[in-house]
Amino acid sequence: MSYHRDIRIEFNHCDPAGIVFYPRYFEMTNSVVENFFRDVLDYPFERIALEEGHGVPTVRLEADFTAPSRLGEMVRFTLALKRLGRSSACFAITGEHGGETRLRVMLTLAWTGTNGRARPWPEDLRRALAGHLHNEEGDR
Amino acid sequence: MSYHRDIRIEFNHCDPAGIVFYPRYFEMTNSVVENFFRDVLDYPFERIALEEGHGVPTVRLEADFTAPSRLGEMVRFTLALKRLGRSSACFAITGEHGGETRLRVMLTLAWTGTNGRARPWPEDLRRALAGHLHNEEGDR
Amino acid sequence: MSYHRDIRIEFNHCDPAGIVFYPRYFEMTNSVVENFFRDVLDYPFERIALEEGHGVPTVRLEADFTAPSRLGEMVRFTLALKRLGRSSACFAITGEHGGETRLRVMLTLAWTGTNGRARPWPEDLRRALAGHLHNEEGDR
Amino acid sequence: MSYHRDIRIEFNHCDPAGIVFYPRYFEMTNSVVENFFRDVLDYPFERIALEEGHGVPTVRLEADFTAPSRLGEMVRFTLALKRLGRSSACFAITGEHGGETRLRVMLTLAWTGTNGRARPWPEDLRRALAGHLHNEEGDR
Repeated sequence: MSYHRDIRIEFNHCDPAGIVFYPRYFEMTNSVVENFFRDVLDYPFERIALEEGHGVPTVRLEADFTAPSRLGEMVRFTLALKRLGRSSACFAITGEHGGETRLRVMLTLAWTGTNGRARPWPEDLRRALAGHLHNEEGDR
Repeated sequence: MSYHRDIRIEFNHCDPAGIVFYPRYFEMTNSVVENFFRDVLDYPFERIALEEGHGVPTVRLEADFTAPSRLGEMVRFTLALKRLGRSSACFAITGEHGGETRLRVMLTLAWTGTNGRARPWPEDLRRALAGHLHNEEGDR
Repeated sequence: MSYHRDIRIEFNHCDPAGIVFYPRYFEMTNSVVENFFRDVLDYPFERIALEEGHGVPTVRLEADFTAPSRLGEMVRFTLALKRLGRSSACFAITGEHGGETRLRVMLTLAWTGTNGRARPWPEDLRRALAGHLHNEEGDR
Repeated sequence: MSYHRDIRIEFNHCDPAGIVFYPRYFEMTNSVVENFFRDVLDYPFERIALEEGHGVPTVRLEADFTAPSRLGEMVRFTLALKRLGRSSACFAITGEHGGETRLRVMLTLAWTGTNGRARPWPEDLRRALAGHLHNEEGDR
């Protein structure tokens, strides 16, 4: 029950070495999270940011870039929710192409109120998230 | 025979006013051109830039931003080839949402050799481009 | 009485050809305008966007990219106010390095109210802008 | 003997919440590393990437975003070299404003040969790096 999203490596992602410039990878991981909220949780970012004045800032991340991605490649991103806290959520995101892992990211988001401080998840959003939790023993 | 491409306005495109920051629009127009070369002309940028060492730099553009685009909107980009020169091509690109034009861009590319200077289009690419030329009197 | 700003071409600006990717030029021209408002007009964007809820969106631009800029080069940007309308302003921005012009941009901004629609410039800002107007006959 | 660099938070860095969008922070950390190589090690990226065909890709990072940075703020970035391996280097980078830490990043680079694979540091670059190593017990 992981969430997948394919992103083509385009000119604007690549550096003078012809490979993805790593800050662009985080535009991609943010896009994957954003589309997971839209497509799976049915809670799009425009509702969070513009209608409600809430936020889901990234508060921590770890990333390993294990192999470069090149212009023109289609990279498959896979997102899995690994932990769900009172006001936070931890996602594992990987990107791979042709059976080769390109990056592994562990990313922690917080839910924030209109004052920008962490707040407990809204009940409906927490329930939607909980339904997509991958436990330690294996994916449900 | 125009080429269309839908791009969702995501968080990374938007400024503190919640609307698209205009330099991001040019990442989008470049992506539209890039995918036109890939999907329609069958001449992807990785072939041009990495295999051949050629380029298709943008040498001139005019843009009108007629209405803002907001987070979450799906903007439909339409590309039409308007002029084909010996070593250049002029594309009209528009973006619209809900019947409202958001931007109109006229963009001139040049084909460049390995030394970065303008060169005549390769014959097969010129032929492919010519097949998509929209004449003044009306679209073919 | 032009405004100058030097910007080093860094890795994040460059494409697989090792030259500036043109959407990044517009991040630079926007930065030049932003710093002109901050340094010269004493009216920083955080005041406009965050405190007042106003905006200065770019509504039109024309750009000529006359020669590529390369990683490591310091490009000198020069901004001159060319026209001042009731709710708009037109700036000429050039970038050059080593005596060679790299880009020429003509860029029109509008002042917008809290509803996002064009509004007359605030009186103090208009006065500050008017003091930096370059007339057709020559720079004052 | 840390390296400092001040970066103004500009419009292009900020998201619809008016705070820095985290992928832009990595453009900043990359810029800090790039300028450290230029200013301190006297080994600029254009030499590495364009003249030599080598690279210094980021292979791993950890980041904590401890407080948001807002439009207009000047953020002071501090870089310290923490570990120097045969073909890698680990940098601690922090950003702070007004005495408040905004982010802490631990970032590992590798030196790569023309084939993109890790290679031992060139001797002169290794020597330059070693002179800036901060040991565990305290900064030299």
